Amino acid sequence: MDDRVREHAEVLVDWSARVEAGDQVVMDVAEGAHDLAVAVAAELGERDATLLTTYGSSEVGRAFLRAGDDDREFAHSEPKLAMLEAADVYLRIGGGRNTTALADVDGERRQRARKATAATREARMDTDWVSTVHPTRSLAQQAGMAAEEYRDFVYDAVLRDWESLADEMANMKEVLDAGSEVRIEKEGTDLTMSIEGRTAVNSAASVAYDSHNLPSGEVFTAPHATEGEVYFDVPMTIDAQRVQGVSLTFEGGEVVDFAAEQGEGAIADVLDTDEGARRLGELGIGMNRGIDRFTDSILFDEKMGDTVHLALGRAYDACVPEGESGNDSAVHVDMITDVSEDSRMLVDGEVVQRDGTFRWEDGFESA
Amino acid sequence: MDDRVREHAEVLVDWSARVEAGDQVVMDVAEGAHDLAVAVAAELGERDATLLTTYGSSEVGRAFLRAGDDDREFAHSEPKLAMLEAADVYLRIGGGRNTTALADVDGERRQRARKATAATREARMDTDWVSTVHPTRSLAQQAGMAAEEYRDFVYDAVLRDWESLADEMANMKEVLDAGSEVRIEKEGTDLTMSIEGRTAVNSAASVAYDSHNLPSGEVFTAPHATEGEVYFDVPMTIDAQRVQGVSLTFEGGEVVDFAAEQGEGAIADVLDTDEGARRLGELGIGMNRGIDRFTDSILFDEKMGDTVHLALGRAYDACVPEGESGNDSAVHVDMITDVSEDSRMLVDGEVVQRDGTFRWEDGFESA
Repeated sequence: MDDRVREHAEVLVDWSARVEAGDQVVMDVAEGAHDLAVAVAAELGERDATLLTTYGSSEVGRAFLRAGDDDREFAHSEPKLAMLEAADVYLRIGGGRNTTALADVDGERRQRARKATAATREARMDTDWVSTVHPTRSLAQQAGMAAEEYRDFVYDAVLRDWESLADEMANMKEVLDAGSEVRIEKEGTDLTMSIEGRTAVNSAASVAYDSHNLPSGEVFTAPHATEGEVYFDVPMTIDAQRVQGVSLTFEGGEVVDFAAEQGEGAIADVLDTDEGARRLGELGIGMNRGIDRFTDSILFDEKMGDTVHLALGRAYDACVPEGESGNDSAVHVDMITDVSEDSRMLVDGEVVQRDGTFRWEDGFESA
Repeated sequence: MDDRVREHAEVLVDWSARVEAGDQVVMDVAEGAHDLAVAVAAELGERDATLLTTYGSSEVGRAFLRAGDDDREFAHSEPKLAMLEAADVYLRIGGGRNTTALADVDGERRQRARKATAATREARMDTDWVSTVHPTRSLAQQAGMAAEEYRDFVYDAVLRDWESLADEMANMKEVLDAGSEVRIEKEGTDLTMSIEGRTAVNSAASVAYDSHNLPSGEVFTAPHATEGEVYFDVPMTIDAQRVQGVSLTFEGGEVVDFAAEQGEGAIADVLDTDEGARRLGELGIGMNRGIDRFTDSILFDEKMGDTVHLALGRAYDACVPEGESGNDSAVHVDMITDVSEDSRMLVDGEVVQRDGTFRWEDGFESA
């Protein structure tokens, strides 16, 4: 076994999930992620946690979703709900064998199934959950890379000095926590959002930072009262459909118009899920300069330095004051825009990022 | 996909597990059983059941079991217990990639882990559970067969007219239910057991018959007060160890002496698990003549016509009067003896089977 698989497992269990003796752990393993699952199991045994492993197979999911009549009703799985409610830690080991394995499942049907499983998603979010991926050939292909090249890419992003990246990102969190309004400007984009009363998360790939992705390297918050236009130039895959060149127009916090150069139907399906799917749940600033290229995987793309992403749908509780609830939805779909050139991000009228450079890096004071 | 995979899934879901709309189903999938799992998922979706899929990977299990100090304590998984308690149906889809994947896990350690998971095993037995296997190359190899040859063997055993086999086996159940004492005689074997007050199960591969294996084709009961000697000439694999030529001597219902030509350590580990592991939990009569050879897999071997098997450890509740408990143990380990030649089985002194032929087949009346 590649030593880096073992190191990946160690980072996941120790830095990210902070697993301790006696923790009740559920690990979900994608079809191609067997090797990392084996390494993680060894780390969990070492730490005297318990382990239940579920099979996150897209092909099993596809077969289940496609079966039955057009008007088939979906329900959540009670065993899954009970399992998640009894779990302290949930580790999702992604890495399938075909990123388009669900391509022939009807969008409306997928949406009904998604709504029906809101309770299990809620229970998962109440655990110390962490998502990561094992570098499979399928993901390498999606990234347009050779398998070995892609493995290097993933381990460069995952096996980092997380403590020091967390320190760097604290600057951005400070600006957002003190601010009330964020404005993003670039060609096709002039968007303002309120962040009044919201708390930014320094997403340092650890539950100790309310951060649930490995790798991570972003600072995010939960915006509201969004107004204006935004254009997402980074391509992505939503529900197994290729999506590119998305424009959204917001009025009073809601999407009132949208277009896409490719995959417009996927965006329409997302927006139709429920009311919350038309509002933003997240504003994220990518700060991981260890990730140096787009690979058509949101886990990596949204963390890349010189990018900003916005998500339609559900907001993370960590960004919202205790007792209040943020935007609620069965979906959370991230979309990314490149801010490396001809762009500005302002907080309360002051420029914080210009052409990909942050204020504290360059000392500039205003526009 | 081989049509027989789909047919196998249909038999499992309809005949064996009797899945109905709204049933909460958990499916456990071994490393090599992906294709059957996909087919079963489609059948479950068709029937409006819910589905949670767990990953029954021996390699994940091995890594977890081997980790940690020599004196590591094991505990059951609370999420697994909660999951099973919420399940109506549990489908175990066996078929790994290496039948000896656990060969280097210390026996004593395995035994401690097994004891610690008694609660989850109990919860699983309270569901409508069914075990089957997908024909993998690893199982073909264990059987000494080519992959395609082995697939034919498995589907011949699984895709049967179960209704008519059930009728045939009803004869044997009738004899056992009416009887008080079973005696088995062959070279190296002279064993008597009480079956007073016990109910035989007509194991026709369906939960409707209290039968939990697909394929099946045996009649079994829960003996007690065992006396005498028995020799098992059919080779088998116990906890990934090859075991052959086992002799057991019983006094007062308990094993007082044992020997094996190969794998004696595995037998010793089983016997040391707990008190119940030294007593018999099952007497089974193989009646599936569709299974025509030993394949070193208990799921098939114990169902073969002209064989009798005995299990150390746990008895099935279905054989024991309501309210009473049968032999209790964390283990249930089956061992098989060939009765096709020079052998007799007597119930209350009357010969029921001689050299593999049953009384109702041949009309013989006594010894």
